[in-house]
Amino acid sequence: MKASVLTIGDELLIGQVINSNAAWIAEQLALLGVTLVRHVTCSDDDIEIERCLREESRSVDVLIVTGGLGPTHDDRTKHVLASWYECELVESEEAYRNLVSVLAARGRAEILDRNREQARVPSLCSVLMNRHGTAPGMLFDRNGLLLVSLPGVPSEMKAMMTDDVLPFIQKRLKEQGDTIMRYRTIHTIGIAEAYLAEQLEPLQDILDEHSTLAFLPNVSGVRLRIGVQATDDEQAGYRLDAIAGRIYNRLDHSAIFGEGNTTLAAEVVAALMRRSETVAVAESCTAGLLGAAITDIAGSSSVFPGGIISYANEVKNRELGVPMEILETYGAVSDQCARAMARGIRERLDATYGISVTGIAGPDGGTSEKPVGTVWIAVATPNGVSSKVYRFGSERLTNRQRSVNMALAMLWQVMGEHDV
Amino acid sequence: MKASVLTIGDELLIGQVINSNAAWIAEQLALLGVTLVRHVTCSDDDIEIERCLREESRSVDVLIVTGGLGPTHDDRTKHVLASWYECELVESEEAYRNLVSVLAARGRAEILDRNREQARVPSLCSVLMNRHGTAPGMLFDRNGLLLVSLPGVPSEMKAMMTDDVLPFIQKRLKEQGDTIMRYRTIHTIGIAEAYLAEQLEPLQDILDEHSTLAFLPNVSGVRLRIGVQATDDEQAGYRLDAIAGRIYNRLDHSAIFGEGNTTLAAEVVAALMRRSETVAVAESCTAGLLGAAITDIAGSSSVFPGGIISYANEVKNRELGVPMEILETYGAVSDQCARAMARGIRERLDATYGISVTGIAGPDGGTSEKPVGTVWIAVATPNGVSSKVYRFGSERLTNRQRSVNMALAMLWQVMGEHDV
Repeated sequence: MKASVLTIGDELLIGQVINSNAAWIAEQLALLGVTLVRHVTCSDDDIEIERCLREESRSVDVLIVTGGLGPTHDDRTKHVLASWYECELVESEEAYRNLVSVLAARGRAEILDRNREQARVPSLCSVLMNRHGTAPGMLFDRNGLLLVSLPGVPSEMKAMMTDDVLPFIQKRLKEQGDTIMRYRTIHTIGIAEAYLAEQLEPLQDILDEHSTLAFLPNVSGVRLRIGVQATDDEQAGYRLDAIAGRIYNRLDHSAIFGEGNTTLAAEVVAALMRRSETVAVAESCTAGLLGAAITDIAGSSSVFPGGIISYANEVKNRELGVPMEILETYGAVSDQCARAMARGIRERLDATYGISVTGIAGPDGGTSEKPVGTVWIAVATPNGVSSKVYRFGSERLTNRQRSVNMALAMLWQVMGEHDV
Repeated sequence: MKASVLTIGDELLIGQVINSNAAWIAEQLALLGVTLVRHVTCSDDDIEIERCLREESRSVDVLIVTGGLGPTHDDRTKHVLASWYECELVESEEAYRNLVSVLAARGRAEILDRNREQARVPSLCSVLMNRHGTAPGMLFDRNGLLLVSLPGVPSEMKAMMTDDVLPFIQKRLKEQGDTIMRYRTIHTIGIAEAYLAEQLEPLQDILDEHSTLAFLPNVSGVRLRIGVQATDDEQAGYRLDAIAGRIYNRLDHSAIFGEGNTTLAAEVVAALMRRSETVAVAESCTAGLLGAAITDIAGSSSVFPGGIISYANEVKNRELGVPMEILETYGAVSDQCARAMARGIRERLDATYGISVTGIAGPDGGTSEKPVGTVWIAVATPNGVSSKVYRFGSERLTNRQRSVNMALAMLWQVMGEHDV
């Protein structure tokens, strides 16, 4: 089964919004084994929308359309769909009732005309309820094409996909007895892409048109995504295991931190939970990002008491006990300061581990000796402190994100989880 | 001048990567006045890539292609381009020299064959230097189409766009004397989209096919984007001013926090700088995100000494001085606790303002009285403390992000900047 995603919105084409919906939908379809062949973004313009509907409907079985269903004049999607399916817009009673109750939950008793207008849908569609918003979804199952139109608001779109659209597609797949695609992703850290490819070169002999291996680099390392085509889950599992087994045989295990839908932060939190240990953070250049990354993980409160954001030197000194001599002699971005911060926060919050990050994120503050991108990271443990300096690049946001990832990687390696 | 963006990569079609490149390119093109008509994502597959090249090249003057230039076997872009332009791949001397120096800067003296292969490009292209990576960019200016192929790594792509591609397009535009599109964006906070539309309804009479007004909601409010078509910058400025003036006349100024490429955090930091004031943070459920948002802004060190991440109650008590009686009687998610945290951090770090955030981000920890999404925010000032409770939704990440935005909004309103 082939699918395409059409996201509609001028805001996407002038770059004011990053299209996170597309990635989420893509992932959900991949998990069902539906092959997403294309993702197209077009403007809130009748002619452009119709052109894309025509083009995409030619080559796919499923077309997921998002956006353009809001209450304002620039929202065109349902008008184009009514014309495309040659039918009228009619008020849906259930959509109207839902709209009233959603607005009531937001404390609004008054129904504006432009909100009521949102309950009107093309007469040929099935209405999909939107529990979180006022725009109903629409499902058309006609002429060999399953077309679904959903709001662009991520929480609304996701709920409707999960509750209605994905189960519908899954049922259709089962009826068709289609071949399936399955994926398995192995997360690595600390080996450059070209070297990984070199080490995994011998795997080429077992890859063919039914199985692929992709290298996906990002700030926290390179992910290896295995993809296989199969007739059923058992066969797919067998093929995935064969390739994954070869990868584990060829790579140093300390370079692999997890599989699937995980992150380094999730693995670190899970390891701390298993060991009944805790970690506290002392952050300078990352200023809270490391604490935020750890607490992105639900349930992290049992392993994370908190931390201190010591952006100013006085805070490093007064709150973390970094001696003024260190700050004056070596500076805040130094091995000595990073170690003192890590020890300080560990003792102060009585945690098993203390991590510190202190660096020059940029764009200013660099010197020839300590250029922008210089970051010291230290981890204090019950047995001592280890530290390391990194030289990232010139981009502030990337430097901060990389610092967080390397700090988590350092903690993970200090814990020795890969040896367990 | 019309443009299209083609991003290539299986990882985008199975949702493992969010396409942030497309938004950035879209924004840069919009700033030049180039109309982006479509953005298409396709897989690393020769037939699909060629199909998209054919389809897109039909209707645009500029086609920006990213991705598929890595050193591994799944990178297909330049092979398809060579076949599309009917020429051979040849090693570019300058690309090879660049590759050697980029790898040397990363501490690698050895050049793997698969890296050297990256210096080979279609013979008909002009090579674009990649200062940050090993894959060269390619520019084809043939048959009325300007086609540019760039790596998918954001920092590499952005540098090459900024240094080479955008200046090239700008020069071309000038030669053609094309009509231009210009945009102006006004950021609002605290008014729902439908109400904004209601208040701005009278503007419809001055909008036509040459001028548009779009409503773009996100977690920090609704942005109003005015777009106008004009023959030159002067005419565009005149039209934009006329519409923006009407908007300022109709809206409460406390609902507008800035214009253009700004964020609430940037406006807050700029206001603190003007006033020579400082802010410190005490974060529970956001656990560092608020500090990170403030320090996302370069130069924030002069207004932000730091903060305390008090995830555990003991940290709220010991480090922020929240009395145990408050924690036991009212709980950590309470008006009393939020106020004590804000006062505590303000005094402790000797800042002009102290902001606190304490809430239930979810998915667990909610009760009928304090459901998931309940968040107390307080701001301590030299004149006292104000506080407010919010009820966000059930999604952990959204709750944390909204908490950060409302905390910044509360500080901004307490400062009374909109009255200046």
